[in-house]
Amino acid sequence: MPLSEEQRQNMKKRRQKILNTAVYLFATEGYEGTTIKKIAEAADVSFGNVFTYFKDKEQLFYAAVVEPLEAISDQILDFNENAEDPLLELQEMVKKDIQLFAGEQNYLTLVVQVVGQYQRFPEPFDQLNQFHDHWREKVGRLIENGQHKGLLKKQASMPVATLYTSLLIGIRLNNTDTRYSDMWAQYITPAFQLFGPIHE
Amino acid sequence: MPLSEEQRQNMKKRRQKILNTAVYLFATEGYEGTTIKKIAEAADVSFGNVFTYFKDKEQLFYAAVVEPLEAISDQILDFNENAEDPLLELQEMVKKDIQLFAGEQNYLTLVVQVVGQYQRFPEPFDQLNQFHDHWREKVGRLIENGQHKGLLKKQASMPVATLYTSLLIGIRLNNTDTRYSDMWAQYITPAFQLFGPIHE
Repeated sequence: MPLSEEQRQNMKKRRQKILNTAVYLFATEGYEGTTIKKIAEAADVSFGNVFTYFKDKEQLFYAAVVEPLEAISDQILDFNENAEDPLLELQEMVKKDIQLFAGEQNYLTLVVQVVGQYQRFPEPFDQLNQFHDHWREKVGRLIENGQHKGLLKKQASMPVATLYTSLLIGIRLNNTDTRYSDMWAQYITPAFQLFGPIHE
Repeated sequence: MPLSEEQRQNMKKRRQKILNTAVYLFATEGYEGTTIKKIAEAADVSFGNVFTYFKDKEQLFYAAVVEPLEAISDQILDFNENAEDPLLELQEMVKKDIQLFAGEQNYLTLVVQVVGQYQRFPEPFDQLNQFHDHWREKVGRLIENGQHKGLLKKQASMPVATLYTSLLIGIRLNNTDTRYSDMWAQYITPAFQLFGPIHE
């Protein structure tokens, strides 16, 4: 008998709940410190039920790293590298990215683990790396357009784009501590300076 | 019978070898993925010999995170926040720090793990955090001195100092890949712009 629409929706919700729980546990307890048993208990599903959705722990880890990336990529790449006013576009981008990185603590903690130990997690790292390359290149084109219009200092664009993505992930890493949480808004202006804006 | 000077030196060397091996293995294989047995084999000492120097895996992990920090702290803090020419001092500092962060891959990968999972490793994290606070404050004072002398744009100094330390750890994280290794020298100028230098 085929699944009813309601059953399908329930399965989808349960899968998402397992995945979110996995992101949280892998992020806070590490790969080895997290077991399917712990995930099942925290997600309030049976041990066996997890395997309805994910083959094994490795596949669940892969999904926990790669699936949230899609939604986040869309937000991160949502800027126009050919904008009429590249300076304004950069400013809006910085503001949006800093807010995003401030909000996504669990998922980004997981990303940091994968990147920091890329030899251990080659498959999910490869996905993150592909996204990172794509992102850096897009930021690089926006920087070059700003330079061509005489709005930014002339300098090699890729090192600047790489510094920018490094800055964001570094902020996330350094701001585990809630003491700094009120600093987020104050990061926007100095971060923007990285691009070498020319003020007339 | 007391130890001879030669025996003392040999013990010191063996302890250091175990510690360096532990840094490497914890960094690449993670805390759970690393065992005393693996460390002993890779350091070419007997399993029991490790315990002559370290009580257990937890204590060895703590030493692997905290002991190298002393030497690195000395290098990182080696700048004069009251320098006559704060701009020149900042420039030299950026150059030195970027070189340092480029070189210390294993140890910094371990640092990234501890910071990224600070709830799991509260004691070593606390040591890293104390150093980080001290560092940020010293950088903050140099920035303020540059602002007072009219050489840097006026802006809150602590967010800028925090962005700077974030940038460095983020570079380390993003540059796991050797493809970017020739970019290090190109980071210096744009990283310096973060401080808002006023060029006349």
